[in-house]
Amino acid sequence: MSPVPPLPTIDEVRAAAARLRGHAHRTPVLRSATADARTGASLFFKCENLQRMGAFKFRGAFNAIAKLAPAQRRAGVVAFSSGNHAQAVALAARQLDSHAVIVMPADAPAAKLAATRDYGADVVTYERRRESREAIAQRLADERGLALIPPFDHDDVIAGQGTAALELFDEIGQLDALFVPLGGGGLLSGSLLAAEAMSPRCAVFGVEPAAGDDGRQSLQRGEIVTIDIPDTIADGAMTTHLGERTFPIVRRLARGVATVHDDALVDAMRFFAERMKIVVEPTGCLGAAGAFAEAGRWQGRKIGVILSGGNVDLARYASWLSAAA
Amino acid sequence: MSPVPPLPTIDEVRAAAARLRGHAHRTPVLRSATADARTGASLFFKCENLQRMGAFKFRGAFNAIAKLAPAQRRAGVVAFSSGNHAQAVALAARQLDSHAVIVMPADAPAAKLAATRDYGADVVTYERRRESREAIAQRLADERGLALIPPFDHDDVIAGQGTAALELFDEIGQLDALFVPLGGGGLLSGSLLAAEAMSPRCAVFGVEPAAGDDGRQSLQRGEIVTIDIPDTIADGAMTTHLGERTFPIVRRLARGVATVHDDALVDAMRFFAERMKIVVEPTGCLGAAGAFAEAGRWQGRKIGVILSGGNVDLARYASWLSAAA
Repeated sequence: MSPVPPLPTIDEVRAAAARLRGHAHRTPVLRSATADARTGASLFFKCENLQRMGAFKFRGAFNAIAKLAPAQRRAGVVAFSSGNHAQAVALAARQLDSHAVIVMPADAPAAKLAATRDYGADVVTYERRRESREAIAQRLADERGLALIPPFDHDDVIAGQGTAALELFDEIGQLDALFVPLGGGGLLSGSLLAAEAMSPRCAVFGVEPAAGDDGRQSLQRGEIVTIDIPDTIADGAMTTHLGERTFPIVRRLARGVATVHDDALVDAMRFFAERMKIVVEPTGCLGAAGAFAEAGRWQGRKIGVILSGGNVDLARYASWLSAAA
Repeated sequence: MSPVPPLPTIDEVRAAAARLRGHAHRTPVLRSATADARTGASLFFKCENLQRMGAFKFRGAFNAIAKLAPAQRRAGVVAFSSGNHAQAVALAARQLDSHAVIVMPADAPAAKLAATRDYGADVVTYERRRESREAIAQRLADERGLALIPPFDHDDVIAGQGTAALELFDEIGQLDALFVPLGGGGLLSGSLLAAEAMSPRCAVFGVEPAAGDDGRQSLQRGEIVTIDIPDTIADGAMTTHLGERTFPIVRRLARGVATVHDDALVDAMRFFAERMKIVVEPTGCLGAAGAFAEAGRWQGRKIGVILSGGNVDLARYASWLSAAA
């Protein structure tokens, strides 16, 4: 194994927070008397669904692009994503007078293609079955001199994502536990750096879909485990493995990884709409569903939950809301 | 016409704000780059849908009950409502170690009856066709020595509702215009008192359903006009007339009353879910729909909007979200 370059620290998270000031929303922390009564704990929901473009992803993308040298920023950036990372890179690039090319599957929903173009990006489509999006993005980067902005496995992205938890601790103080959605580990590893500095005794858990428990397996085996693309409504957590940069941080600092089934995500979505009046996407509900399931162990304690995003197709969302309770 | 007792002033709104501190949420003010781009104005959304029990009504109910003499508070309160006022009085009474009896129609949705009981209230049902809820509430007040807490036409309720706009001005500073949902006028008259003191040149508009434009008619005629119960999805604005206490304030201070059709409320609900990730009930969208319609006159200006509540039946809400755009 080749030596790992030094991992990001709380210093990089704090520097990212300074860069984001005035550009990202400082999202509200919401409470719910009903959630507290049901769990017996005191819950603090950090609402990244209310972040710009509807997800925490804006933080990491903005931080990564802001750190590029001026000439590189002018030359532009490229990313591959059919989800929140695409819109995050597009919007952050526009805000930083850069320019983004986003590689998306040709059969992505028209609304997502349009939304990404609305944020000022060029969209390059590819055929899912015949082409590799990584190869296309790399070729664009080489040919056009674009900087590749990866979705999670990048120090500047990790540092940016950590600013959400940093704000949560800054506002609430020490917490006993923190539940964080887990896909590739960008949000979780950034949150772990923030927790270690701001609330060292806080037990931090990643929460992933039961159908895609590569994070839990990886912690158990002590190495990155790769799985097949999982079948889950949590489309932001359909990752197949943690990253080379995120895994070591997760391994060192996370208390554990919990898993939840899709029906618990639907229950949580309904709870947030009905009782807290907020729209949270399935992936965004992972942390909450984990906290609700584990709350019995945290009676009378203060629990933080990161609601990571709120971008949903309205028709699908409506079908989840109208599902039998 | 008998002399009108002195109307509430900003002093009563400020006193209400002091009483509410630590009991009501100081709700967030959300922005939307999309809303700004579409309207050409800078919009500030005061999110009372994120208030306790999901609506601004908690403010007025809490203030009114908090001002009762201790003996009266112990004796209890009564209110008639099938909407947000019922839950507001129930929750405020519980918080203030009082006790609430709520008069609700026997055919009210089971979920609403249950929610009101969940907040610790006794529910007394009546037959819509045969009985008057006002008479029942008055009889309960007389027989049991309960204090009647009216939904809008009461100085302490008006002062409490004004604290939402007070917080908005305190956070944002001067505004050029403010759009406020209008039913019986409690929220509008309280907001007008706040605006007069905090942002005297702000043009404040009430917005009511086109099907129930008694407010507009009343301003035109210079007297309270009573209409039939309007047919609208804005169930919190199915009032038939302004109040003896709210109308004089509206008449003196409001710049005007705008009206919007139900389809504009559905459009607004979809916008809030899709772009801002918040659940706003139809009545809660009145101010926003009015602001969207009138924004052409406010290019480049700062516009406040009060989102008054978020309590919806999930099945109906889902059907609105999945309606053709």
